[in-house]
Amino acid sequence: MTGGGATPPPGWGEIAHLGHVELLTNRFEESLDFFTRVYGLKVSLQEPDCAYLRAWDDYEFHSLKLTRHHTTGVGHIGYRAASPEALEARAEAIAAAGHKVLGWDEGDAGHGRAFRFEDPFGHVFEIYFDTRRAEPAPEDRPALKNMASRFHAQGACPRRIDHLNLLASDVSVFRNFMQDCLGARVTEMIQLDNGRIGGCWFTINNKTYDLACTEEQGGGTARLHHVTYATDQREDILRAADIFLENGVHIETGPHKHAIQGTFFLYAWEPAGNRVELANAGARLILAPDHAPVVWTEAERRKGQAWGLKTIETFHTHGTPPVEQR
Amino acid sequence: MTGGGATPPPGWGEIAHLGHVELLTNRFEESLDFFTRVYGLKVSLQEPDCAYLRAWDDYEFHSLKLTRHHTTGVGHIGYRAASPEALEARAEAIAAAGHKVLGWDEGDAGHGRAFRFEDPFGHVFEIYFDTRRAEPAPEDRPALKNMASRFHAQGACPRRIDHLNLLASDVSVFRNFMQDCLGARVTEMIQLDNGRIGGCWFTINNKTYDLACTEEQGGGTARLHHVTYATDQREDILRAADIFLENGVHIETGPHKHAIQGTFFLYAWEPAGNRVELANAGARLILAPDHAPVVWTEAERRKGQAWGLKTIETFHTHGTPPVEQR
Amino acid sequence: MTGGGATPPPGWGEIAHLGHVELLTNRFEESLDFFTRVYGLKVSLQEPDCAYLRAWDDYEFHSLKLTRHHTTGVGHIGYRAASPEALEARAEAIAAAGHKVLGWDEGDAGHGRAFRFEDPFGHVFEIYFDTRRAEPAPEDRPALKNMASRFHAQGACPRRIDHLNLLASDVSVFRNFMQDCLGARVTEMIQLDNGRIGGCWFTINNKTYDLACTEEQGGGTARLHHVTYATDQREDILRAADIFLENGVHIETGPHKHAIQGTFFLYAWEPAGNRVELANAGARLILAPDHAPVVWTEAERRKGQAWGLKTIETFHTHGTPPVEQR
Amino acid sequence: MTGGGATPPPGWGEIAHLGHVELLTNRFEESLDFFTRVYGLKVSLQEPDCAYLRAWDDYEFHSLKLTRHHTTGVGHIGYRAASPEALEARAEAIAAAGHKVLGWDEGDAGHGRAFRFEDPFGHVFEIYFDTRRAEPAPEDRPALKNMASRFHAQGACPRRIDHLNLLASDVSVFRNFMQDCLGARVTEMIQLDNGRIGGCWFTINNKTYDLACTEEQGGGTARLHHVTYATDQREDILRAADIFLENGVHIETGPHKHAIQGTFFLYAWEPAGNRVELANAGARLILAPDHAPVVWTEAERRKGQAWGLKTIETFHTHGTPPVEQR
Repeated sequence: MTGGGATPPPGWGEIAHLGHVELLTNRFEESLDFFTRVYGLKVSLQEPDCAYLRAWDDYEFHSLKLTRHHTTGVGHIGYRAASPEALEARAEAIAAAGHKVLGWDEGDAGHGRAFRFEDPFGHVFEIYFDTRRAEPAPEDRPALKNMASRFHAQGACPRRIDHLNLLASDVSVFRNFMQDCLGARVTEMIQLDNGRIGGCWFTINNKTYDLACTEEQGGGTARLHHVTYATDQREDILRAADIFLENGVHIETGPHKHAIQGTFFLYAWEPAGNRVELANAGARLILAPDHAPVVWTEAERRKGQAWGLKTIETFHTHGTPPVEQR
Repeated sequence: MTGGGATPPPGWGEIAHLGHVELLTNRFEESLDFFTRVYGLKVSLQEPDCAYLRAWDDYEFHSLKLTRHHTTGVGHIGYRAASPEALEARAEAIAAAGHKVLGWDEGDAGHGRAFRFEDPFGHVFEIYFDTRRAEPAPEDRPALKNMASRFHAQGACPRRIDHLNLLASDVSVFRNFMQDCLGARVTEMIQLDNGRIGGCWFTINNKTYDLACTEEQGGGTARLHHVTYATDQREDILRAADIFLENGVHIETGPHKHAIQGTFFLYAWEPAGNRVELANAGARLILAPDHAPVVWTEAERRKGQAWGLKTIETFHTHGTPPVEQR
Repeated sequence: MTGGGATPPPGWGEIAHLGHVELLTNRFEESLDFFTRVYGLKVSLQEPDCAYLRAWDDYEFHSLKLTRHHTTGVGHIGYRAASPEALEARAEAIAAAGHKVLGWDEGDAGHGRAFRFEDPFGHVFEIYFDTRRAEPAPEDRPALKNMASRFHAQGACPRRIDHLNLLASDVSVFRNFMQDCLGARVTEMIQLDNGRIGGCWFTINNKTYDLACTEEQGGGTARLHHVTYATDQREDILRAADIFLENGVHIETGPHKHAIQGTFFLYAWEPAGNRVELANAGARLILAPDHAPVVWTEAERRKGQAWGLKTIETFHTHGTPPVEQR
Repeated sequence: MTGGGATPPPGWGEIAHLGHVELLTNRFEESLDFFTRVYGLKVSLQEPDCAYLRAWDDYEFHSLKLTRHHTTGVGHIGYRAASPEALEARAEAIAAAGHKVLGWDEGDAGHGRAFRFEDPFGHVFEIYFDTRRAEPAPEDRPALKNMASRFHAQGACPRRIDHLNLLASDVSVFRNFMQDCLGARVTEMIQLDNGRIGGCWFTINNKTYDLACTEEQGGGTARLHHVTYATDQREDILRAADIFLENGVHIETGPHKHAIQGTFFLYAWEPAGNRVELANAGARLILAPDHAPVVWTEAERRKGQAWGLKTIETFHTHGTPPVEQR
């Protein structure tokens, strides 16, 4: 295990967790059908041009905002601050660090006012504190009061949002952005032979990561690699593979176990082409307050995934939106 | 889901995680054999009268200190602070709050100097920052560098320490202690009809709990209810039940799913009588920074565990040390 | 392991497998809703007073015939013969053995002509060879052609029918019936201290059992203890427990592992009160052609189930129909 | 599902099950270490130049005979007959069908006299009835008397032998051999565009297959593709992948799910190069007495495994012994 001794960046502790991802789709109805019936999220609110979705144990009103659009990819990424004071402190720090500030937004159906800013590669972020909790309909109330909603057992039915993966042409620049803006720490990373960073996995709490950024190899800008929800068990992911198979969903790769982070995974493409993942990390958490990044070399990466699976070509090149589409 | 709006107590964020539990045994050799061969922990260091044990992915040198003693129960409980500064701050706050201070201890083979204090029921706690990391022997190094040690697959082989459960004659007093000393928040609790608190589940990070305290019903003092390690999958626990069965270990109850916290569990007694648990929480975490305690009533508890299992009598009465032993 | 040396009875090999069970319900609509939406069977054909149901990988048109009735329990039990010749041979042997013959029946929507007969306790059996295969609708066709129907993932969604358990006031008499009529062998049994047989588990192929018979302790006649479907994994049963919980289904006992046969189980009552089970036997099969019965004593049974769970009172007394109902 | 109507060949029912495989190794000590410590079989008897191994719930003395040799591959394949009479009948039928008869052998430490014969590609088979049952040492006796031995939990620890896969230059010729000699039926097969049969999966009982034969593409003779043991759960196979990883075992492909037969699989090479598999079929059995072969076309095979994994090159070419070695 790569040693300890690392100190978290300023701002550590001021962001509580990844809240939601806005996903753009140019096949809104098909995507919505996929995310509800097959992937197993629940609709909190449907509007003509967007739907607020949540996993059964997401405590907030939504963790996925699906938006009708002329293209695909990520609309914005929302993180919840740890407190109203932390939100203000972060807003000031972000502005002070010289990152592109979009300013205060009044929020939407899912949460209150939010501070918006942008990374150097065009992805829009927001942080907010005031939120709306999941409001399960009577038939959707859980049998056990410590769950956010009923375990509805529809489709893959993951438990909660887990993380997303963005693409950036310079990961080291993105790393600075994440440290400055979210007080995020790097838990694992890929050090390429050419001196560049191939990928970084960031966390702002005890999760192994909330956001990963890997190097853009398709020439796009502001692109999404994938969005991931967490299942309770690895067996849920094997079962999901059968559900995807029976529903004609394009399984890209998996189920298998990542070498990096050790997560059990399954990747598929939703009808509009956005990549989605189901993942299970077992009981793994980052508990050490001085956790130093685990650094993987190219040679180590060439061994493939944990059990030897070689990474499929599209995994390196496919992002949304496609380069020709934007 | 019981709503939000709760603010964490002062000191929140200053303690990083539960580090280790010292367990006393009057059958040292048998207990050590159980914890290594059957339960599946690894020896970091063995001395004549104690052994430092860790799970395969515990990042510290030890998470269980097994100590030869004339009786059973818990020796002390160690929490790791988030930073050297946080350690000092906590020490001052604990003293200021008027709790029984035992003072600074020089540490042991597993960690550096520690601040020791005691709860009103006689359990000894310590907080420390300087720690010793797991030092896997060459044959015990993991294939993947992001794991603390090799997945050795011996016995039940849980991944990491999870929590412990203490007994106290007044849980509300214990709750104050946890809030004052560790900045802990209550994630779930039992409200008895007589106005007393039947149990509290405490966390100091994103885990659903690191420590639970339930009402002492056997007349003992400073007693332990159980110590728990986390497995990656529920299936690991079913497999552990077979391992316990084949090794003549007393399975007290389970496998089943707790209503409180929703954890899948298995309880057994190690040779000296200390109760140990294996648990799996799936992907459940407490991410909301304003998580309010989920409060269970007696009527709700009477329904039994999640799937209806009634709590076995010894679960209410057996603690260590036995009342007659101390 | 109890030794070998046993020879299968005459007729062994002439019966291929348990085909279907007719279950009576005095709450037809509620039972049908349970078996389809919650338990996860598929409707092959629905008529005003009965429904033909199958699990997703049952190869025949139905494995459960749900029939509207003034009471509950089992209507009849259907076994498929190994060939037309075997069917005739069995019919002759049954008549010759002096068991109560009900004669040839023309069959129903699920299979062709069947030979009907009755055990000494009033349960009606039939054997048939001509059968109707599952006819999945276009949207229900499987992605993989070696499966009978699509894995639809609705409810508990077991793979196939597994077995049923009848009650009889004299299990040794029932054993003779099974040997004479079906050429069945006993794989495991309970020998009571009073010299009676407490239960017998019968197979006519490599399954560990297709039918169990346990001693009637409620004073009823021709009663059913339970009907069981097989899941692919134990994890499916843990998941089913959550589905039952969320749907208000009465979970009687489990999930746990049987000592007898080693099956992982979950028992629930469908809305009309018939007990249903979900079970997983892992990779266990009876392959030895000279397998001798494993005989369990009362003392051994007192240890409870495999991991120590004590058998719940209703499990001994509840059968369908209730004694007062018939 | 490909329909019914097929009649089993003469001799069906006379062979009970696959009993054992003799595996040759030119790294005897390393292979033995692998099969016991890592793969998780138990030694029934060790002699200077061979070891008799069994899985924990194999009821016979051995299911794998590991033999020191100058090369690798399969020594012989043993099937147990259903009765002494069936053994004689099969011996006569095999001779009458004109296959190469090697004659009666006195047996070895694991079973009594056996009738030996050879397929047209040089693989040696034997059938026997008199067998020696597993004789667990006192410390290896199971807690539950219906298991053959104690669940020892060492290594991957599969439950029982499942099947083997041979290579033949003409699968249709091999098919005739299996039907003539073992009364085996084909449950699934690959029909190549060139009119040849690419592979056949054979059963002689309710298992989906005991033996597969695929087309030799490496130019060898009498070669083995792999030997497989069955695990109770898919999760056992995921766990085994970690055990293989930690022990430096070459994982060739998997874990994944086969399209053919739907089995969850993991392939690895033992130290001498023989391919071994761990597999889980869930609750799938062939129960229909008139099951017709499921026929897969080349076009269907090009879709890869069930969830899309492409077959790795060595899977087509690697067999034992290597062509250059024999």
